[in-house]
Amino acid sequence: MHIISPYLLFIGDATDQLSIKMAQGAADWRPNLCVGEFSVDGCTVTTGIKKMSIEEASKQGAKSFVLGFANSGGILEKRWLPYILSAMDHGMDIVSGLHEKLTDFPELIAKAQETQQQLLDIRHPKAEFKTGTGIKRTGKRLLTVGTDCSVGKMYTSLSLEKSMKRMNFNVDFRATGQCGILIAGQGVAIDCVISDFLSGATESLSPNNSPQHWDIIEGQGSLSHSAFAGVSLGLLHGSQPDALVICHDLNRSHMRGLPHSQFPSIEATMALNLQAAKLTNPHVKIVGITVNTSSVSIDEGRKICDELSNKFSLPCVDPLRDGTDSIAKALI
Amino acid sequence: MHIISPYLLFIGDATDQLSIKMAQGAADWRPNLCVGEFSVDGCTVTTGIKKMSIEEASKQGAKSFVLGFANSGGILEKRWLPYILSAMDHGMDIVSGLHEKLTDFPELIAKAQETQQQLLDIRHPKAEFKTGTGIKRTGKRLLTVGTDCSVGKMYTSLSLEKSMKRMNFNVDFRATGQCGILIAGQGVAIDCVISDFLSGATESLSPNNSPQHWDIIEGQGSLSHSAFAGVSLGLLHGSQPDALVICHDLNRSHMRGLPHSQFPSIEATMALNLQAAKLTNPHVKIVGITVNTSSVSIDEGRKICDELSNKFSLPCVDPLRDGTDSIAKALI
Repeated sequence: MHIISPYLLFIGDATDQLSIKMAQGAADWRPNLCVGEFSVDGCTVTTGIKKMSIEEASKQGAKSFVLGFANSGGILEKRWLPYILSAMDHGMDIVSGLHEKLTDFPELIAKAQETQQQLLDIRHPKAEFKTGTGIKRTGKRLLTVGTDCSVGKMYTSLSLEKSMKRMNFNVDFRATGQCGILIAGQGVAIDCVISDFLSGATESLSPNNSPQHWDIIEGQGSLSHSAFAGVSLGLLHGSQPDALVICHDLNRSHMRGLPHSQFPSIEATMALNLQAAKLTNPHVKIVGITVNTSSVSIDEGRKICDELSNKFSLPCVDPLRDGTDSIAKALI
Repeated sequence: MHIISPYLLFIGDATDQLSIKMAQGAADWRPNLCVGEFSVDGCTVTTGIKKMSIEEASKQGAKSFVLGFANSGGILEKRWLPYILSAMDHGMDIVSGLHEKLTDFPELIAKAQETQQQLLDIRHPKAEFKTGTGIKRTGKRLLTVGTDCSVGKMYTSLSLEKSMKRMNFNVDFRATGQCGILIAGQGVAIDCVISDFLSGATESLSPNNSPQHWDIIEGQGSLSHSAFAGVSLGLLHGSQPDALVICHDLNRSHMRGLPHSQFPSIEATMALNLQAAKLTNPHVKIVGITVNTSSVSIDEGRKICDELSNKFSLPCVDPLRDGTDSIAKALI
């Protein structure tokens, strides 16, 4: 799965900022990969980058037309097909993170053959993975893990990559979800992999590297989330992390989507992840904590982070408000 | 996935008893579902049941032609197609646990349409699963878990079902692997499910039931196996077991397929499984231990089981040598 840049971000007629999270991620983290944003009548939101037609984007060199919106059910609505066909006629590959496949539409298959453009269904990995070996790989790896789903693991990973690049680390972000894959231009949507190959696919995501190189691997789910803990564990074992960063969101009373569930403490999350990670890397260490403190004031958020930092003797930050330099420094 | 009995077990020209494990499982555990065994020139092994041609099996009422052999790579060799086509002409569905799909062969698709027979690729679940909810279900559940892969979890599960039926328990075996699915006539090959749906697929496997009903769920992998622990954890969380049976094989020095790995103790396996299982069932208990003692004498095996039984104050048996009545009794 290799996405060719630059991208034209298609956000359709979206009216909900959350529904264009995928386009927003690319615009925020890789503005240099995005030539522009394309929307149609009725759209009331924007990623903030330049509006542009398919024709104009093509002239500016756009190579991929990205379906940058989501909808419930992950359906690819028929009304978007004319735009997709036009983008292919203008020399662009098509990138989709929807559940419904581009390759399920015969007219798209035919156009792809005619134009020799690719149809990239990010949520449907095509690679033939192997089962995990557990064999130690060279280079260093950091994995973000969480008390829950959607607590800022991707954001923390990308922020760490940015901090570490500024400090001249040799570092790569390794994407495991569709939004991350668009940002990185490659990766594996790990929860879309056949279970048997969970660890093996993760191993292939961060192969042997030079001894001082860091892979920052985007975590998924949580060991305490009863629907997705299997994914989190396969990802943890396959990553063989040297370093873990614990990600947390203040604003939770139960696991995402499971109103009857209990929420784990940060201590319990640390213990559970360390214990499991030691199976493939006995030297694993927790190197920092990130907290989404957006539900409280900046001062209150800072106080909470300071308390956690003192309690665990680890750097603790809100990655959006504070950045992650303090955690990156701890890796030196 | 529902397999219609009775079966004709096709073992091709197998010369290795281990390669016909799938046919053997059905012949051993469900002889009443099997009308006979069909093999071709060169075959030197047998499941022990009556040899029979496709024509004869059809006359005896066979409804499914089972590819009961395995090969490295899970390839469906072209030379078997004539037999498969003939079986469909004789009114049988085709059942395959091979990696390569029956439905990848246009001639089989065409014949299936012509004859209205089913092509059942057990390793490729077609059901649309949901993600797990973790919501408590009615009825009771027992899951077999192991120190490693292939330590007797399916055998233990089936033996327990047999013991419990004799004791008039209301009980069902729930299959999670291809061999088990053939034996049960239904189930989900859990390691072939997309990771996102691991727990959800497991939840659907043992739905709500009457309060005294037991589901005996076939375990997979091991929480200590770095390639498959994710599968084991998803299965554990989705099963919500009330009872766990720990399965072990004396003859191991490292995890199956991972020569560099450490082997966990029975104590560690108990602790790890109890801890993880409590996320979806805080009342889970370990109710017994089974050990494959085939590598030592009967007396020595008995002694080892007695020592483990005393050490953990739990029934401990070799399920093949001793049966599992003592564990079933502990469930009353």
